[in-house]
Amino acid sequence: MVERVVIIGGGAAGINVLELLLRGCKDPGKMEITLLKKEDEGFFSMCGLPYALQGMYSTSLLNLFEPDFYKDKGIDFRTSVEVTGIDLKENHVLLSSGARISYDFLVIATGSLPFIPPIKGANIEGVYTIGSSADGKLLEKAINEEELENALIIGGGWIGLQTAVAFSKKGITTRVVEKLPHLLPSLLDGDMASIIKKYLDNDLIFLLGTTVDAIKGWQHVESVKAGVDEFPADIVLISAGMLPNVDISRKAGIEIGESGGIVTDLSLRVKKGSSHLENVYALGDCTEVIDAVTYRPRLSLLASTALIQARVVAYNILGEPSYYEPCLSPSVANILGLQVGSVGATSEIAGKYGISIKVGKSVKQTKARFFPGGKAITAKLIFEASSDKLIGAQIISQQSVAERINELSLGIKAGVTAKDIWMRERCFDPSLTMVEDVIVDAAINAVQS
Amino acid sequence: MVERVVIIGGGAAGINVLELLLRGCKDPGKMEITLLKKEDEGFFSMCGLPYALQGMYSTSLLNLFEPDFYKDKGIDFRTSVEVTGIDLKENHVLLSSGARISYDFLVIATGSLPFIPPIKGANIEGVYTIGSSADGKLLEKAINEEELENALIIGGGWIGLQTAVAFSKKGITTRVVEKLPHLLPSLLDGDMASIIKKYLDNDLIFLLGTTVDAIKGWQHVESVKAGVDEFPADIVLISAGMLPNVDISRKAGIEIGESGGIVTDLSLRVKKGSSHLENVYALGDCTEVIDAVTYRPRLSLLASTALIQARVVAYNILGEPSYYEPCLSPSVANILGLQVGSVGATSEIAGKYGISIKVGKSVKQTKARFFPGGKAITAKLIFEASSDKLIGAQIISQQSVAERINELSLGIKAGVTAKDIWMRERCFDPSLTMVEDVIVDAAINAVQS
Repeated sequence: MVERVVIIGGGAAGINVLELLLRGCKDPGKMEITLLKKEDEGFFSMCGLPYALQGMYSTSLLNLFEPDFYKDKGIDFRTSVEVTGIDLKENHVLLSSGARISYDFLVIATGSLPFIPPIKGANIEGVYTIGSSADGKLLEKAINEEELENALIIGGGWIGLQTAVAFSKKGITTRVVEKLPHLLPSLLDGDMASIIKKYLDNDLIFLLGTTVDAIKGWQHVESVKAGVDEFPADIVLISAGMLPNVDISRKAGIEIGESGGIVTDLSLRVKKGSSHLENVYALGDCTEVIDAVTYRPRLSLLASTALIQARVVAYNILGEPSYYEPCLSPSVANILGLQVGSVGATSEIAGKYGISIKVGKSVKQTKARFFPGGKAITAKLIFEASSDKLIGAQIISQQSVAERINELSLGIKAGVTAKDIWMRERCFDPSLTMVEDVIVDAAINAVQS
Repeated sequence: MVERVVIIGGGAAGINVLELLLRGCKDPGKMEITLLKKEDEGFFSMCGLPYALQGMYSTSLLNLFEPDFYKDKGIDFRTSVEVTGIDLKENHVLLSSGARISYDFLVIATGSLPFIPPIKGANIEGVYTIGSSADGKLLEKAINEEELENALIIGGGWIGLQTAVAFSKKGITTRVVEKLPHLLPSLLDGDMASIIKKYLDNDLIFLLGTTVDAIKGWQHVESVKAGVDEFPADIVLISAGMLPNVDISRKAGIEIGESGGIVTDLSLRVKKGSSHLENVYALGDCTEVIDAVTYRPRLSLLASTALIQARVVAYNILGEPSYYEPCLSPSVANILGLQVGSVGATSEIAGKYGISIKVGKSVKQTKARFFPGGKAITAKLIFEASSDKLIGAQIISQQSVAERINELSLGIKAGVTAKDIWMRERCFDPSLTMVEDVIVDAAINAVQS
């Protein structure tokens, strides 16, 4: 019997499921895969977009695979398709054309959409969001072809900061308005975020703890009212977060969680009524995950999360039981050469969930002090107070952040304590490391604090 | 009561114990510390020596602390002192001057000495070894001041290769003779070592699987007979490994293990007869460690090992029970820009100890393929076959090796399996990482092999 797999969504989540099914399927004749995506493209790397906007390469380079790449492998790969409904009883998907596509397995990978805060004037021309490659290409065109003097970014998260850098590199006066008191509030504590602010202070103007009241302009944006002042702006980016795209799922009766994402079990099967459906999976930005520190639901919204979830979904469809563990969302970004990494709980998140903590912080170098070329590196480690177990880490430097975040992610999963970090041998070469690493020193400081 | 601590040896091991005692001692008036070292210097970073020889800076930069630095802190810091004996019954150390120094706690950190193979002519002028800063300074002088045309290195380990690069950078024709069939035999398998050989093939001449029979010359070295040929050489470096410096320990009746290093318990206390002494510790290159994969004794000979052992010794002396765990010896070196890292067992070591393995190898990039500036990275992961648990890793690239070695060291300690590596989320940013890291791909390949 041939199994029909239908995947809704062609972002990192959907495409990874597709590729893993292709790789893992032992009898390709027994599986028919349909992928439905609303965009007119094959696979576009959204993660590469910030650097394209910053002029490092063209967005067209990010079209990693054309639709024909998948069609040639026998996939029914459909672009510019709008899915309007899911019939979970009859096991079919409805398209805006009226067509019905039956499935044995359904994979919901509908991603996320930019959150537009209720600001007056948010729909004026010259106001952008970044939710898709099309959005990115419009913004790329504006940055490169329009004569812009003043840009204003609403939201001081990754996307906001990366796009702010793109504007600034073009010589555009760029303001970043963040309603919370510090940048990257979901990933960093205020003390760590202040390092980034200081690093960018020459290039960007920051308005922290400030709310945007209105975007103003006649036909085209002209200014933004934020706090008590009004600022000139001929371009505005709203980057106030992303929301799971769950409309068709909700309409189909699939349970949506407190975070706004689709609820799943460990196998990533969706829930309807009191039970999880055997043959309907959801993954990526449209789902909620269970946090590995607080064990409460939240969103992850990372391509790296989608990649691991894609493995779980693909293996389950291929008949190999597989589970998605509580999530740590290790993340890193490279903001104008400053690498910023975070994993697990921040002090602020720990406080919110009533977790008592010990914190250790350290500033050291990436290489031995006598070796030329090292850079400052700051680490903040967060331990649960009673067990001394690591629950979070934040690292900032111009070198070697990503790998330390990966190491500490493993550390959190493995339940390492401050003393484990402190008494564990690390490799040493003065051209590459210090003999006592910044994370070791931070762990020592946490215990001795 | 005042406690007298005597430390024999002022390399990384002895100095670290000294510094940790200074840092940790709550009542400095209650502890008298004497450090006895044979060299005429404070603390010299031997790990920084290769890059000094390569002309990156002068060896004088590696005198990180002068004796006065320690004397000013109240330490009885004695240089150019020869310890001739230890009286374990009377608790004192004998100096060549005839003086006796009493101790309550003794710390043996006598380090290692270059192994000189029984080669005819090994004592001719122009033949060097690297066992101390003095050796390094002599070699630095020779490289910079003599008119050298042909160098020959006996031994293809770290020290040999790093020094070979130093010669080569000066335009000296440099041959490296290694008796085993590949370079870095204690750290890499042959397939991984071949990457280094290829990388260095334009700069160095390698004679692998070749034994040196004689060093020839009248008053000064002129040539070396290796294998069936004779090669011109106006300078020779013997870097055929290091041996624990245990003469005075052996003479005192302290047990020396099968590896040639001093036997200790988990607290790093030495053994005499059937019991471990309460107040005599040994650490660093002169001791043997228990391997964390094979659980058999071996040498580690790394400053990073000495640092962790120094913590154990210092905490024990300070009255806080502390133990040294079986050792993984994560290590990394930077050979002409190529970073080479290794931790745990190689395939060859696993084979020697009868451990069945699964091996996964992968070559990927350090950054997303579309992002400029990434470099090739090769990883080889070794798993125990029945449990799929990681027991060893080898990584080579021009970027980001050290941090991956540290992550995998933690992985071995935490008992991670190939599937754990494969299903664990990693941070992703295309300018810093690939979405699927080389170690993930290697883990997948190990399971599917």
